[in-house]
Amino acid sequence: MEARQNGPNGELPAPAVPGPTNPMVTPLLTDLYQFTMAYAYWKAGKHDERAVFDLYFRKNPFGGEYTVFAGLEECIRFIANFKFTEEEISFVRESLPSSCEDGFYNYLRGIDCSDVEVYAISEGSVVFPKVPLLRVEGPVAVVQLLETPFVNLINYASLVTTNAARHRFVAGKSKMLLEFGLRRAQGPDGGIGASKYCYIGGFDATSNVAAGRLFGIPLRGTHSHAFVSSFMGPDEIINRSLTSHDGSTTCEDFVSLVQSWLSKIQWSESLHGSFGETNQSELAAFSSYALAFPTNFLALVDTYDVVRSGVPNFCAVALALRDLGYKAVGIRLDSGDLAYLSSEARKIFWSIEKEFGVTDFGRMNITASNDLNEETLDALNKQGHEVDSFGIGTYLVTCYAQAALGCVFKLVEINNQPRIKLSEDVSKVSIPCKKQCYRLYGKEGYPLLDIMTGENEPPPKVGERILCRHPFNESKRAYVVPQQVEELLKCYWPGNSGRAREHLPLLVDIRQRCIKQLEQMRPDHMRRLNPTPYKVSVSAKLYDFIHFLWLNEAPVGELQ
Amino acid sequence: MEARQNGPNGELPAPAVPGPTNPMVTPLLTDLYQFTMAYAYWKAGKHDERAVFDLYFRKNPFGGEYTVFAGLEECIRFIANFKFTEEEISFVRESLPSSCEDGFYNYLRGIDCSDVEVYAISEGSVVFPKVPLLRVEGPVAVVQLLETPFVNLINYASLVTTNAARHRFVAGKSKMLLEFGLRRAQGPDGGIGASKYCYIGGFDATSNVAAGRLFGIPLRGTHSHAFVSSFMGPDEIINRSLTSHDGSTTCEDFVSLVQSWLSKIQWSESLHGSFGETNQSELAAFSSYALAFPTNFLALVDTYDVVRSGVPNFCAVALALRDLGYKAVGIRLDSGDLAYLSSEARKIFWSIEKEFGVTDFGRMNITASNDLNEETLDALNKQGHEVDSFGIGTYLVTCYAQAALGCVFKLVEINNQPRIKLSEDVSKVSIPCKKQCYRLYGKEGYPLLDIMTGENEPPPKVGERILCRHPFNESKRAYVVPQQVEELLKCYWPGNSGRAREHLPLLVDIRQRCIKQLEQMRPDHMRRLNPTPYKVSVSAKLYDFIHFLWLNEAPVGELQ
Repeated sequence: MEARQNGPNGELPAPAVPGPTNPMVTPLLTDLYQFTMAYAYWKAGKHDERAVFDLYFRKNPFGGEYTVFAGLEECIRFIANFKFTEEEISFVRESLPSSCEDGFYNYLRGIDCSDVEVYAISEGSVVFPKVPLLRVEGPVAVVQLLETPFVNLINYASLVTTNAARHRFVAGKSKMLLEFGLRRAQGPDGGIGASKYCYIGGFDATSNVAAGRLFGIPLRGTHSHAFVSSFMGPDEIINRSLTSHDGSTTCEDFVSLVQSWLSKIQWSESLHGSFGETNQSELAAFSSYALAFPTNFLALVDTYDVVRSGVPNFCAVALALRDLGYKAVGIRLDSGDLAYLSSEARKIFWSIEKEFGVTDFGRMNITASNDLNEETLDALNKQGHEVDSFGIGTYLVTCYAQAALGCVFKLVEINNQPRIKLSEDVSKVSIPCKKQCYRLYGKEGYPLLDIMTGENEPPPKVGERILCRHPFNESKRAYVVPQQVEELLKCYWPGNSGRAREHLPLLVDIRQRCIKQLEQMRPDHMRRLNPTPYKVSVSAKLYDFIHFLWLNEAPVGELQ
Repeated sequence: MEARQNGPNGELPAPAVPGPTNPMVTPLLTDLYQFTMAYAYWKAGKHDERAVFDLYFRKNPFGGEYTVFAGLEECIRFIANFKFTEEEISFVRESLPSSCEDGFYNYLRGIDCSDVEVYAISEGSVVFPKVPLLRVEGPVAVVQLLETPFVNLINYASLVTTNAARHRFVAGKSKMLLEFGLRRAQGPDGGIGASKYCYIGGFDATSNVAAGRLFGIPLRGTHSHAFVSSFMGPDEIINRSLTSHDGSTTCEDFVSLVQSWLSKIQWSESLHGSFGETNQSELAAFSSYALAFPTNFLALVDTYDVVRSGVPNFCAVALALRDLGYKAVGIRLDSGDLAYLSSEARKIFWSIEKEFGVTDFGRMNITASNDLNEETLDALNKQGHEVDSFGIGTYLVTCYAQAALGCVFKLVEINNQPRIKLSEDVSKVSIPCKKQCYRLYGKEGYPLLDIMTGENEPPPKVGERILCRHPFNESKRAYVVPQQVEELLKCYWPGNSGRAREHLPLLVDIRQRCIKQLEQMRPDHMRRLNPTPYKVSVSAKLYDFIHFLWLNEAPVGELQ
């Protein structure tokens, strides 16, 4: 990659914004037609016409009635460093017809985003269909080039953040949620992005080390089945000594200590008959793992048989560790009936607490991690289970229930002329005009609805009645007296407008915003089954204008 | 990113393999538990034990009976450059408990993949469940660190290649297939990966400029709805002159020429009454686009109304271009009933060919691109349509019908001891032993089945009867007399074994292999509805060994 420079004339913007997390996000990460259009605009002398585009989606994902907006920081990083390298320009030249004039490539050489303005809803906000997430203003040819990367950077980010939020909603606040999706993600930064955005959406940690390093997300992980089956039996453990937690004594044969605990468990009264011979590979693997991580002993117990082998082997090691002053962390279940197995494991833990007088052994952490998703979490809740932490991968990071969000980027104004995109499908008609967007709150503190107005209309005022109309359905309208009015679109990239630029918040702050906003929603919008749609409206004035423009642009049919 | 060096002792391997396409693919792109396990192996002195892992999947995606293997080149690029930087080692140190010993970090500092061997099925091959796509051999701690990146790099690659192949199968060989998915992909390299792997799977081109540059994939694209609605009307077109294709004349007012053709069309006999007033923004946009790209005029005709506005406007511009010796390319439909609209458009093209004597106008290219997938392509085929090219995005690149492939990485041998991973779900039991894999072909040239044998068994021979057994179902077995025997696993990374290394083929050659292999399959395995499963078997000797080991490892239950 060649180095990129900030600023239109070589000067550095203040504060400088780093480039996109993924160095593959360059001005070439766009569709060819953005370049053919840029050329056609340039050839027609239209390239510098001031255009306004809205980025929005049409339908909430996963059958829900809300979405969490994410991806904004990456968009701002992208435009802050938007500049073609000579190598990129050469490639564009190769890709366009040879008849295209040289002047266009000089034009490309000169452009950046210093004349582009981006107004956006803050990242981590709860958002709704039709309301612009971004309003992007600038020279039409430049803004057009931003369409594909912006939509790419926002679609998956918002989708997977929403998915994470939905998983958190079902799991409840008290559970630990771990994102384990890297291996099943759609490519390397499908994995890295998933880790970042699931954290925003309310997950507590990830297994993905690269994401931990890039974003400071807490990391979690212990061992896999392969580790367990890599051992043949306890005989192969050579170094068996373990110093006690306080350093006062050293157990010279930890493995024997484990084995003596195992026979105590096998002959214990309360557990009698539950266990026969446990698997010796597994016992060796657990002992070895405990020797390596005496303070962090968490064992995967389902390589052979959870109840007959994994749990008793774990307990033997945990009790041996306890003799040396260490407290085991817990177990992980990765297959089978998680409700049943977690309950059985919990019973054994309680029995051991009682029989051997081991304080807190009953509260041992149980992590579960086998192809979990919203539905299985919900089913586990209904059935009853003893899981404390959930490790969630495939369904979470690939958004298996709905693998794409349909964000679009539509021209709503050019040269101060409002534009509309028609469609035979009413839901695909765009809302014209450069707009302001507000969230109106009711007496109980919940958001009541979002309203879009023309740019120059006065904003809704607290305590003043305002008519809110459905943009396309004339019979749907309501008067609202807001108790609080929030302006949604903030200036995240001021271009040459002279406005102040919103700073890009830290990841933890975006996460906090998301968690807080989700809590603030009226519960009936959030429930999984038949949630109530949140209302998105336009002002009376904007409503009238939309329908005037629509009639104006649509051809009149002739039936024959 | 810090620079990485090839080779264990600073020497360059020959030939040098470039790093992964995405610079974010580093040794940290793995799960934390690979490091905790590496530490536990190291602490137990087991880290250099020679292990063999198989990478395979358990079920074909999309309800089909085949999968296309892809992602191998990225895996080889990854291990060829596998080396920790100091910064990465520091981060691992921060992420592990402080009790971990320093020696481990020195160990990490020293490792690379010079002692790892990778045997793999060639990229672009048709593959089946349970058969290893990769067999990875090496020091257990090192190979364990490769698990997550390998599985990440192969899962999505194989899934989306298979999805592309399935779309090609439904569309048929004669259609042009364009991948348009960048904006809806799961992140930036979800998009870039999709472009690469859809090309392997049989697509002809992509809209993704970055992928075009990285991989040399042909690029396609023209203009969007925004381009159309950015024009108000023909009056705004200033420079209206267009020189004829042969350079002999210049039309000073191309827009007037277009308008005169439009009125001819409006008053034409064969089309009489079909068109009223067409949309003037659209007419201006088409004229302007044609002025910019007279040799590549392809217009998006559904911004206002396909039949009443888009197609007649297109025809007027195309006929005007023809007066100047240019041949228009065609139209794109992006909404509505594609079967109906393409047929209506085709009728108009034929009418114009007839009425105005314009050779080949009837054969004008029609591209369609609205939320297409296997099902809609199939429905279009059944209904009848006139589409020549399909632009496919969301459903293709996000693998919407099934967003993940479940490749796993299982230990099958360590220190020459075969290992098995049990599960209450038989389909999850791993096939132990370091294995050889063969594809046996029958008389008609079709592959009959794949067979896995122990490493040291003699390979199946042409013309010799061999017993092939289902690995887990004792009643399923068959004698086969192969007419051709193909050894599936080839050495793509020889480590220190001294074997010759298979070269990494060019992308176009991988694509050719894929297309050829798909053609070679017996048709009943390939059909969309109720395809016949392809048989995957083990030798009689391996069968016996699997079941011996299984009984040996499984605990005996006690019913009470």
